[in-house]
Amino acid sequence: MTSKSEQDRVLIFDTTLRDGEQSPGATMTHDEKVEIASMLDDMGVDVIEAGFPIASQGDFEAVRDIAKQARNSVICGLSRANIGDIDRSWDAIRHAPQPRIHTFVGTSPLHRAIPNLNQDELANLIHETVTHARNLSDNVQWSPMDATRTELDYLCRVVEIAIKAGATTLNIPDTVGYTAPRESADLIRMLIEKVPGADEVVFSTHCHNDLGMATANSLAAVEAGARQIECTINGLGERAGNTALEEVVMALKVRNDIMPYRTDVDTTKIMAISRRVATVSGFSVQYNKAVVGKNAFAHESGIHQDGMLKNAETFEIMRPEDVGLTETNIVMGKHSGRAALRSKLKNFGFELADNQLNDMFVRFKALADRKKEIYDDDLLALMRDSETDAVHDRIQVKSLRVVCGTDGPQTAELVMLVDGEEKSCTATGDGPVDATFNAIKELFSHEARLQLYQVHAVTEGTDAQATVSVRMEEDGRIVTGQSADTDTVVASAKAYVNALNKLLVRRANSAPNDDVKTVSFRDSV
Amino acid sequence: MTSKSEQDRVLIFDTTLRDGEQSPGATMTHDEKVEIASMLDDMGVDVIEAGFPIASQGDFEAVRDIAKQARNSVICGLSRANIGDIDRSWDAIRHAPQPRIHTFVGTSPLHRAIPNLNQDELANLIHETVTHARNLSDNVQWSPMDATRTELDYLCRVVEIAIKAGATTLNIPDTVGYTAPRESADLIRMLIEKVPGADEVVFSTHCHNDLGMATANSLAAVEAGARQIECTINGLGERAGNTALEEVVMALKVRNDIMPYRTDVDTTKIMAISRRVATVSGFSVQYNKAVVGKNAFAHESGIHQDGMLKNAETFEIMRPEDVGLTETNIVMGKHSGRAALRSKLKNFGFELADNQLNDMFVRFKALADRKKEIYDDDLLALMRDSETDAVHDRIQVKSLRVVCGTDGPQTAELVMLVDGEEKSCTATGDGPVDATFNAIKELFSHEARLQLYQVHAVTEGTDAQATVSVRMEEDGRIVTGQSADTDTVVASAKAYVNALNKLLVRRANSAPNDDVKTVSFRDSV
Repeated sequence: MTSKSEQDRVLIFDTTLRDGEQSPGATMTHDEKVEIASMLDDMGVDVIEAGFPIASQGDFEAVRDIAKQARNSVICGLSRANIGDIDRSWDAIRHAPQPRIHTFVGTSPLHRAIPNLNQDELANLIHETVTHARNLSDNVQWSPMDATRTELDYLCRVVEIAIKAGATTLNIPDTVGYTAPRESADLIRMLIEKVPGADEVVFSTHCHNDLGMATANSLAAVEAGARQIECTINGLGERAGNTALEEVVMALKVRNDIMPYRTDVDTTKIMAISRRVATVSGFSVQYNKAVVGKNAFAHESGIHQDGMLKNAETFEIMRPEDVGLTETNIVMGKHSGRAALRSKLKNFGFELADNQLNDMFVRFKALADRKKEIYDDDLLALMRDSETDAVHDRIQVKSLRVVCGTDGPQTAELVMLVDGEEKSCTATGDGPVDATFNAIKELFSHEARLQLYQVHAVTEGTDAQATVSVRMEEDGRIVTGQSADTDTVVASAKAYVNALNKLLVRRANSAPNDDVKTVSFRDSV
Repeated sequence: MTSKSEQDRVLIFDTTLRDGEQSPGATMTHDEKVEIASMLDDMGVDVIEAGFPIASQGDFEAVRDIAKQARNSVICGLSRANIGDIDRSWDAIRHAPQPRIHTFVGTSPLHRAIPNLNQDELANLIHETVTHARNLSDNVQWSPMDATRTELDYLCRVVEIAIKAGATTLNIPDTVGYTAPRESADLIRMLIEKVPGADEVVFSTHCHNDLGMATANSLAAVEAGARQIECTINGLGERAGNTALEEVVMALKVRNDIMPYRTDVDTTKIMAISRRVATVSGFSVQYNKAVVGKNAFAHESGIHQDGMLKNAETFEIMRPEDVGLTETNIVMGKHSGRAALRSKLKNFGFELADNQLNDMFVRFKALADRKKEIYDDDLLALMRDSETDAVHDRIQVKSLRVVCGTDGPQTAELVMLVDGEEKSCTATGDGPVDATFNAIKELFSHEARLQLYQVHAVTEGTDAQATVSVRMEEDGRIVTGQSADTDTVVASAKAYVNALNKLLVRRANSAPNDDVKTVSFRDSV
C-alpha cells in the first residue's frame, strides 16, 4: 500500500454491517447482511467490516458466511481488547480469501476510567492483544477508541506500541463526532510525523457525523496522509451516523482537481445499494440527503428551460448516471413483455432463473392491472416482496377484509394458514391496522413486541404501492418484515406475518438468547 | 458589526423560507411561512430571508406580512439584478423595523453566458442595481451567484464594485455545493485581503450540501473572516439542501475551544422548529440526521449501563436538553387534567385561549379513550389537527366507511358537507386510500393533481396515530393538507379535504395564476 504508484489510492472500508447495524433500530437479518456484503464486494469496496463476531451467535454466523462468499474484498471482524474476542473474530473471518482482524480499546481519559486501567496497564493490554492478533493473521487493524479526545502524547505512545506489535492498519476514530477538518488533519499529520514506523502502515480515519462534519473530517484526514476511510452506506450508524460512503467517494471524484486521490468504488452502483440498505434497515434517506436523496438531482420545475438544457453543468456538478440513477421514471405498463421485465431487473442487478422470472411476471401483470404506470421503484418493491414470499412460510395470509372509517370500531376478518391449517377470526381495533394486527395475534398467539411500523409510498399517485416495514422483538431477537401492495392494510398484514415467519426461523435455529448481543453500546469504535 | 467587541459574533441568516421553500416539493402556505418566521425571530435568528417577492403575488404577500410582524430579526427579500425586482422586494420588506434588500446575479462564466453579458456589461449592471437598492435602504446585501466557480480576479472586481455602490453585506455563494473547507476559507480570506473596502462590510457564506460538506465549508469561511452564515432549518433547500442551521450553531457551541465565535441563537428552540419545518414542508428528517434526527441522541439499549450512567460525556458531546429535546416520552393518559394539558402545550410554545383549550381537551380525551399512552408527539399532532379544522371550511367529512382487503375492489362510502349541503356516494379504487380519494372527487369535482401522499406514524405501537400529508397542485398553486387519526384511512380523507379547502381559499384570494411563481430554478443563489 505504500509503494509510490499507490500513493494516491484511498482504501474504502465499509462498516455498514458493523457500526451501521449497531445503530438503535437498524438490525438486519443474516440473509440481508450476506446480500449487502455481496453488493459491497461487487461495487469495489476494499474492506468490509462484516460484524462483531463475539456479540452473538447470529453475528458470528453472519460474519462467517460473508467470509465464505467473499471475492475481492478483505473481510474484517471487530473484537475488543481480549484474547477470547480476537479468537472468536478469527474463527469467523478465517474462511475469507483475505481476512483482517480489527481490535480496539478506548484510550481517552473517559474511556480508560471505565475498566479503571492506568496508562501503563492499558499500554500492556494493547501490546498483548495486538501481538496475539498478529500471530493469527498478517492483516491486523487496531483502533484507539475516542482517539480525538485522547492526550496527544499518549496517543503517539499507544499507536507506536500497536505498530511494533504488528498492526498493519492504524485507525484513528472520532468516536463521538467531535472533531473538525483542520483538527482531524493535524492529528493524522502529527501521528505520521512523530510515531516511529508510521511510514510502514496505513493510517485510517473513522468519523461520526454528530456535528455534520464527518465527510469533511475524513477528507481532511486523507489530505494529511490517511489512506483508508471508514464509512457506511447512507451514513448509517449510531446517533447521527458515520461518514457516508457515497459522499466521500463522490467528493473525491468530483473534486479530484483539489483532492488528487482515487478509490476503486464503481460509483454507478451507489443508488442500488443505498436503496437496499434503506429498505433492510428501515432507515429512510431524507429527500435532501447528499448524493442519494430523492431530491439530490432534482431541480425546480424550470428544469426544461433554456439555460438548463443548454448546459447541464450550470447547476449540476455530478450527473445522475454517475451514481447509477438512470431514467427511473421510464414507465412500464400492462403491454410490457417478459423480455423488457428481464432486462429491467438485470439493470437493477437481479439475475433471475426462468421460474423466478415467471413468478415475477405474473406479479407484474397483476400490478399492471391495478396500476396504470409502473415505475422502477414499483418493480423493486415487487421484487423484494417476491423474495419474502417463501412457499415454506409457516404462516400465510389467505384473505383479509377490513371495515374502517369514522364510525368505529374498525373490524378485520382474517383467514390465515398456520402450519397448513386454515384458521379464521374477526377482531376489532383502533384503526384498520390495529384491528388487522389484533386478528393475526388471535390466530397466532405470540409475545413478540412491535418495535416499529412504517409506511412508504413507493411511487407517486393515489394508486401507489405502499411498502410497509414491521420490526418485532422477542427475547432479544429482532426481525423486520416487509411487504408491498396498493392496499396499505393488506401490505401491513403481510409485513407483520413476514416478520413472524422470520422469528419462527430464528427460534428454530438458535437456543433462547443465542443471538442476543452480549456487547453493549460502549463497545463501539 | 466590525467593532472590536463584536469580532467573535457570527450572524445567522436563515433562508428556510426562500432557498428552503424553493426546493421541489417543499412549498409552504402563507400562514405556515408567517408562523415559521415568528419562530425564527423568537429563537434569535439575526436575519430572516422571507421570500422572493417578485416570484408571485403569494410570495409578495408572505414577505410583506412577515415584515409587518417582525420583532428583533432583520427581514430580507431576494431580488434579481433589475430595478423592478428590487422595487418589488422593497415594497414587501419596508414594513419591517429592520428591512434588508438582497440582490444577486450569476458571475461565473457559465452563468454570464445565459444573459450573454460580457464582464464589463455585467459589472455595470451590478453597479446600477446595487446603487438603486442602496438608495432605498441602508441595509443591502449582494451575492455573486456561483461565486466558487467565478474567476478570482473577476470576483474581486465585482465585489469591489458592489461595496463601492453601497452593499453592506457581501454574500459568497457556493451555489452548486462544489467547494471544500480549505478552498472555502481561501476564497473568503483572499477577498478580505485584496478587495478595497472589505473591512467595512460583513462577508457572508452560503453553502449547499451536494458533497456533504456544507457545514464544514461554512465554518471554514467563518474562520477565514466571514461573519454571517446563510442556512436553513433541517438543511432544507434545492437538491441536497443548504447548510443546516442546527449543525453550524451547535458546532460553534460544542467546539468553541477551537472555533471561538458565538451566535445569538437560543439552541433550546431547535427541536421545536425542526419538527414544525419537517411537518409543513413534508420533508421528513432522517433518523441519523445530525442534531435533529430521531437517533441523534439515541444510544444502543445499553444506555442504562454503568459506564453511561457514571459519565454521560463518555459518548455525548451535546446534551439533549441543549437542543430542546426534553423528556418527550413522558406519558399523558386519560386521567390527565386540563391544567396538565395547558402546561404541556405551553412547553411546546402554544398559548391557548380558554375556548381553544376546551376544544383541545375534548380531542385529547377522545384520543385517550382510544390510545393507552399519549406521548408529546401525539399531542403535537392533535394540536396541528385542531388548527387545520376550521369551522368555516367549505368541505367537511361527515362520515366514512371503507371496506378493503385481499378480495377487491376496495370500496368507500362517504358522506360530506359541501357548502352546507349533505352529499353521499360510494366509490371503488385500488386500495382503501384510492377508493376514498375517488369518493371525494365524485362529491367535489376538481382538477387539482395529487403531488405527494405521505403517512407517518406519530408515535410507536399499533394504536399509533398516523399523520397524513397530501400535497396538491392546481394552475401552479400548491397546497398541503394534513390530518392525524388512529385510523390511517380517516386521516387520509381529512388531509385530502384539508388540502381542497386551502385550495378554495387560494382560488378566492387571487386571480388565476396570481400566485404561480414567475422566477425559475435558475434564479437562486
